[in-house]
Amino acid sequence: MMRPFKSLISLEEALEIVKSAIKPIVRTEEIFISDANGRVLAEDVIANMDVPPFDRAAMDGYAVRAEDTYGANQFKPVILKLIDVVRAGEVTEKKVGVNECIQVATGCKMPPGADAVAMAEHAEQCEGKIKIFKPVHPRANVSGKGEDISAGSKVLSTGEHLNPSRVGTLAALGIQKVRVYERPEVAIVPTGSEVANLGCELKDAQVYDINSYTLSAIVRENGGVPIKFDVTPDNYEDVRNAMVNALKYDMAVFSGGSSVGESDILCDAVRELGDVLFHGVQIKPGKPILFGVARNKPVFGIPGYPTSCLSNGYRFLLPAARQLARLPKRKDIVVRSKLAQRVVSTLGRSQFLTVRLEDGFAHPVFKESGAITSMADADGYVDIPANVDLLEKGEEVDVILL
Amino acid sequence: MMRPFKSLISLEEALEIVKSAIKPIVRTEEIFISDANGRVLAEDVIANMDVPPFDRAAMDGYAVRAEDTYGANQFKPVILKLIDVVRAGEVTEKKVGVNECIQVATGCKMPPGADAVAMAEHAEQCEGKIKIFKPVHPRANVSGKGEDISAGSKVLSTGEHLNPSRVGTLAALGIQKVRVYERPEVAIVPTGSEVANLGCELKDAQVYDINSYTLSAIVRENGGVPIKFDVTPDNYEDVRNAMVNALKYDMAVFSGGSSVGESDILCDAVRELGDVLFHGVQIKPGKPILFGVARNKPVFGIPGYPTSCLSNGYRFLLPAARQLARLPKRKDIVVRSKLAQRVVSTLGRSQFLTVRLEDGFAHPVFKESGAITSMADADGYVDIPANVDLLEKGEEVDVILL
Repeated sequence: MMRPFKSLISLEEALEIVKSAIKPIVRTEEIFISDANGRVLAEDVIANMDVPPFDRAAMDGYAVRAEDTYGANQFKPVILKLIDVVRAGEVTEKKVGVNECIQVATGCKMPPGADAVAMAEHAEQCEGKIKIFKPVHPRANVSGKGEDISAGSKVLSTGEHLNPSRVGTLAALGIQKVRVYERPEVAIVPTGSEVANLGCELKDAQVYDINSYTLSAIVRENGGVPIKFDVTPDNYEDVRNAMVNALKYDMAVFSGGSSVGESDILCDAVRELGDVLFHGVQIKPGKPILFGVARNKPVFGIPGYPTSCLSNGYRFLLPAARQLARLPKRKDIVVRSKLAQRVVSTLGRSQFLTVRLEDGFAHPVFKESGAITSMADADGYVDIPANVDLLEKGEEVDVILL
Repeated sequence: MMRPFKSLISLEEALEIVKSAIKPIVRTEEIFISDANGRVLAEDVIANMDVPPFDRAAMDGYAVRAEDTYGANQFKPVILKLIDVVRAGEVTEKKVGVNECIQVATGCKMPPGADAVAMAEHAEQCEGKIKIFKPVHPRANVSGKGEDISAGSKVLSTGEHLNPSRVGTLAALGIQKVRVYERPEVAIVPTGSEVANLGCELKDAQVYDINSYTLSAIVRENGGVPIKFDVTPDNYEDVRNAMVNALKYDMAVFSGGSSVGESDILCDAVRELGDVLFHGVQIKPGKPILFGVARNKPVFGIPGYPTSCLSNGYRFLLPAARQLARLPKRKDIVVRSKLAQRVVSTLGRSQFLTVRLEDGFAHPVFKESGAITSMADADGYVDIPANVDLLEKGEEVDVILL
């Protein structure tokens, strides 16, 4: 009844297998740009207009004919006639003629006739006359029409990750809606007859479903939409049926099966519907993780112990969800810190050591795979490679924030 | 008509003033834990139950009376009678007596009479008898009731930032809803007669509203709810009325006023309704930034040029929004990179230099304050301190990702 795990593969091999198996989402949708931050562009954005849409003043000052200012200096200013005052958003019908000028604010459309702006700082107003103390060359302090973006040019490309500044770029072009890749839907299926749905009273020998919530949060943070299933009892038929339903989504994640028997049921179900690509990885905790492809969809089987699940969630599900969503690899936030105590690890196992950051030290909070407190207290984790068996107290480690 | 900026203060002083002026939100709301990731707890979470709720097997194996296994070894196993098989979620009515055992799976409630689990790896099944090859001590491989969390103990505290593992902790306790701080509402008010709302046709001399979208995205990413206003023309009365409305929210951000005149209107409106705490900071771009407190609410005036706005958004609005939302300080994601070209900065100004990361180099993309392309191309920025005036090509810099 209890099949042992056969050969375990390394964490690196396992991650490589997942990476090769996942096909980024191809469905797209059109959304308002106010909802587009964090999303991934599914179209090239071609400018449909010039930016700026007209020649405009880049400084507060006076729109002039540059040639009229040549030779001006601090002691011998050029004197121009002020024929109008224009504020941003306004247009003037007057034309700047020889030795004339129009006062402009930053962002103003350049008045006809003028080809430069003399800065307010280098001018003085006096009885309808303007003294210009510094010459300007043609186009000085003017942003030319289309100088920033010319109509027809490609501004953003398919696959780009939208951040606040790129959302602003879309607005600059008057674009209200944009085509992005859909967020992939990830089925999260808790299994185990000992697991109760939240909101139900615990029967004797039951515990609450924890992992669906942890995994759903990880999926949502990394570009996916979690589709939470109710708890599936761990018999072959129920697990298989749940899997058929879960595989209608873009990826399926089963959590549960802390015992060898449960793990086998899952493994058999994947085998019936597709292929198991690995089952068992040289990691601690979370060793019995299973990954396969069934009905053309990636499927994970993640052990039920909460800290095993957390660790597998960060190590496997997180990069898988991002790849599926076409998001760039997570840029981990790393805090360099000193270990508050000695940590013994296991040679041949990559350890996911949860820690709390306090007083500048990283305090290990791992108690046992089942411990919830080690999840409550964790600020981050230290990734201890398989070839390290001991970290000394005070040793510097990189803590990756959760 | 054009008042010059008086004394500029340093970036550090300005940030300190903002920090002192902002009062973190006090309103709270109750939400489902499936929506709680990323939120801030507004209550201590006290365990209402023991976790685990019963003594349970921590390993697959055999529930035994520890004393029956003493003396067992590889060559002389102890032989026990198997009286039942229990799977997780099941309970047995049988009691483990002298020299008896019950097969259990990980997570099973411990059968009465047994006080330890002998691991499957150290046992052998043979015709209804179980050979145990290794002694176990009492409580070996058993997670005791309440050992992880005992009923009545404090598990999470007010002010804690919920991450996937803490959301899982709530689920472990059967908690479905949790009290969190509301997301602060931040009014975003674009100003300027030259600025058109998206969806409107551009009139002559107008450009589209860009900054509201950039700033809204920054607010949303940092714990706030942006409340986007329509464009307010830049005359005193309209700006003042918009400000009265905006100050009904938790914070108000006016963007616009690229010209000195517009900036003054905003400044006067803040002064009428409260106090200006600074106006003008030694930064580049974005120098004319204004901050004050009016009707007891923080209010920003951010210059209208898109890159000035972007830079002020990251430098000022981002930490202010997080403080308001009670989120921890942003942990910047920093990529160490080499400058692709020489950069001249201005002594006495902290520069926000937008860069694109490509081929392992940081390529400055800043063209001018008004340039949209420098926003489209930016992956991050380099913060050049006020006392640095030159960065050489190839010099290593920290790029903070947008």
